Amino acid sequence: MTWLDLPPDTGFGPDNLPYGVFSTEPDGPRRVGVAIGGHVLDVSRLDVPAADALATGSLNALMSRGRATWDALRARLQELLADPAHRAAVEPHLLPREAVTLHLPVEVADYVDFYSSQHHAENLGRMFRPDSEPLTPNWKHLPIGYHGRAGTVQVSGTPVVRPSGQRKAPADDGPTFGPSQRLDIEAEVGFVVGTPSELGRPVPLSAFPEHVFGVCLVNDWSARDLQAWEYVPLGPFLGKSFLTSVSPWVVPLAALEAARVAPPARQPQPLPYLDDTGEPWGLDLTLEVRLNGELVSCPPFGSLYWTPAQQLAHMTVNGASLRTGDLYASGTVSGPQRDQRGSFIELSWGGTELLALSDGSTRTFLEDGDVVTITATAPGPDGTRIAFGEVTGRIQPTP
Amino acid sequence: MTWLDLPPDTGFGPDNLPYGVFSTEPDGPRRVGVAIGGHVLDVSRLDVPAADALATGSLNALMSRGRATWDALRARLQELLADPAHRAAVEPHLLPREAVTLHLPVEVADYVDFYSSQHHAENLGRMFRPDSEPLTPNWKHLPIGYHGRAGTVQVSGTPVVRPSGQRKAPADDGPTFGPSQRLDIEAEVGFVVGTPSELGRPVPLSAFPEHVFGVCLVNDWSARDLQAWEYVPLGPFLGKSFLTSVSPWVVPLAALEAARVAPPARQPQPLPYLDDTGEPWGLDLTLEVRLNGELVSCPPFGSLYWTPAQQLAHMTVNGASLRTGDLYASGTVSGPQRDQRGSFIELSWGGTELLALSDGSTRTFLEDGDVVTITATAPGPDGTRIAFGEVTGRIQPTP
Repeated sequence: MTWLDLPPDTGFGPDNLPYGVFSTEPDGPRRVGVAIGGHVLDVSRLDVPAADALATGSLNALMSRGRATWDALRARLQELLADPAHRAAVEPHLLPREAVTLHLPVEVADYVDFYSSQHHAENLGRMFRPDSEPLTPNWKHLPIGYHGRAGTVQVSGTPVVRPSGQRKAPADDGPTFGPSQRLDIEAEVGFVVGTPSELGRPVPLSAFPEHVFGVCLVNDWSARDLQAWEYVPLGPFLGKSFLTSVSPWVVPLAALEAARVAPPARQPQPLPYLDDTGEPWGLDLTLEVRLNGELVSCPPFGSLYWTPAQQLAHMTVNGASLRTGDLYASGTVSGPQRDQRGSFIELSWGGTELLALSDGSTRTFLEDGDVVTITATAPGPDGTRIAFGEVTGRIQPTP
Repeated sequence: MTWLDLPPDTGFGPDNLPYGVFSTEPDGPRRVGVAIGGHVLDVSRLDVPAADALATGSLNALMSRGRATWDALRARLQELLADPAHRAAVEPHLLPREAVTLHLPVEVADYVDFYSSQHHAENLGRMFRPDSEPLTPNWKHLPIGYHGRAGTVQVSGTPVVRPSGQRKAPADDGPTFGPSQRLDIEAEVGFVVGTPSELGRPVPLSAFPEHVFGVCLVNDWSARDLQAWEYVPLGPFLGKSFLTSVSPWVVPLAALEAARVAPPARQPQPLPYLDDTGEPWGLDLTLEVRLNGELVSCPPFGSLYWTPAQQLAHMTVNGASLRTGDLYASGTVSGPQRDQRGSFIELSWGGTELLALSDGSTRTFLEDGDVVTITATAPGPDGTRIAFGEVTGRIQPTP
């Protein structure tokens, strides 16, 4: 409910209210904004809780205040946008979205990437380890994850410079050096930690909504040739660390209550710290992946084997602490259908199948000049939709 | 040369001058200090370059100023300590080391852990992958590394709470959950980045001293049972992320000129971006590992196959940027001899050989109450020694 005149399918209605960081001049002072329809609301100028935390260059100050503050701020914003009595006070602070520059919303502390889509893991397993079972023996016992490079997490729109590195085809005697020939995406969903935790104290499943502030989209750009050569035995490194793009908008966890769904049945039964019976955090998000504007995949997030609550519980069960600004991503989201795969290595089956585009061209991996854009929507209350801001990037040639 | 009365073997003479962060009350304001003999010099109170950057709670402000400032500050400190004319101005700011609390010296940005000791990698390969060649095919072509958890890097002395997690012995049907039964150390050397780099611009080998501010000791505590179960295919995660301890003192790179040595011969020849002919950065550090005070190992850092300059060049060759505060560690340092192994999994050969201690007890892995302390020295100019501050920790039972 709002006095703003919004199209019914906006996805950025008053039930969403995602947070971002913007400036009116590209290099001007940054502050927190909220997306509403086609506008950015300059919330630090309003009479709202935690207003001091909103006049800063990242969401971290707000996120560190904790769930009670997040809820109070959200309730107040909904009230301001619902009651026409507040229109005169609010309207001057609504800026057209085209008129602002959006920045990296979060000062990222640690970045962790999971691997929780069974379809993706099986697809990759078949391609990377054709002589073994597609899922490693641990896969259904724990959400496999690893730490990525926090310093190269950048906001949507950051150019994707094709990385160079070592790659070795199986037939080659040794590695060669040069630009990646298998540049790829990973369509993922990211979870941003607000409330920190103490070293040595695991965070139980039930505390997920106390710690996680919100949800964004993530494109974990990947150089598959670099990755394939380097990743045994210690995991991905340079094949991933050149860039990870995130959407500029962080959707509050509270906006996703209507999107909660039961996760897939797990067999074998997870260990008690991962047993989410009664408090499942599956989320019915549908991602859309577009290459140069053309829809190539619709990965279903709700199909993920491990939920973000299980990922959080696992990540901390050894006593590892959380910091405000920690970002963890789901891993590539892939569904069972070909047009639900969240990476080009899957869409092209390791480069062996051409993906035909409507302009008559074909792709296996990404070419210079290609633009990849990921969006998502989720069910909101009363039949509304919750939209996520896009995460996009254009491939630039190696300098 | 100094007017201070220092024992000749101090290791903390005027050719060292490592930087740390201290407070006079445990929770009092923090500032930068320099170790000299048994004292901490409160350098922010002196007439020195960058004094404003020294009255802060980490080395990051100083580190971000760059090599020219680091060199100017170091030269000025050496002058102040050499010329008795400055004694009256300096002496009031010398505090007994016992009188201060030392803190985490660096606000850690990204943490990367390498795997660059051939002896260690071969030992681990034999134990973790007995059916394969001990070194993976990529090992001699690139310095293998992975990102670790920056948020759990803590200063020496932080209690080591035994982590819980999933572990599965080969004979077990499935994993069980509980405290790690194979708690271990990794004796490593860490390199702290001062000068950042731009996204998309690799840092060449030759730029190592422009970017790296200094060197510390690292104990990358490891739960081998958690690690063995989780690490395929994406690398170590919870087996490492519960705690990484660093020494409170960061030795300036400039203090290690006399310690530079040629690294081992490499075969095959590294690719050009890793070819360090003519500018080798091998460093003749000898580590000492003590368990409950008893020397159990002397790992030789100079034997590492890949140098820290090569690690830096590799880490950024894909265009990944550096931030002030990035920390990268060498990987466990192990020499060819049994008493040069830098971890208990090697000292006990996977828990199959008992390590006999002088009190009559034996160890394979660490027991609750055990204290592990790592120190190191390197050659300084004119026959002096450069000492590193210890990194220590006591194992506490799982709560």
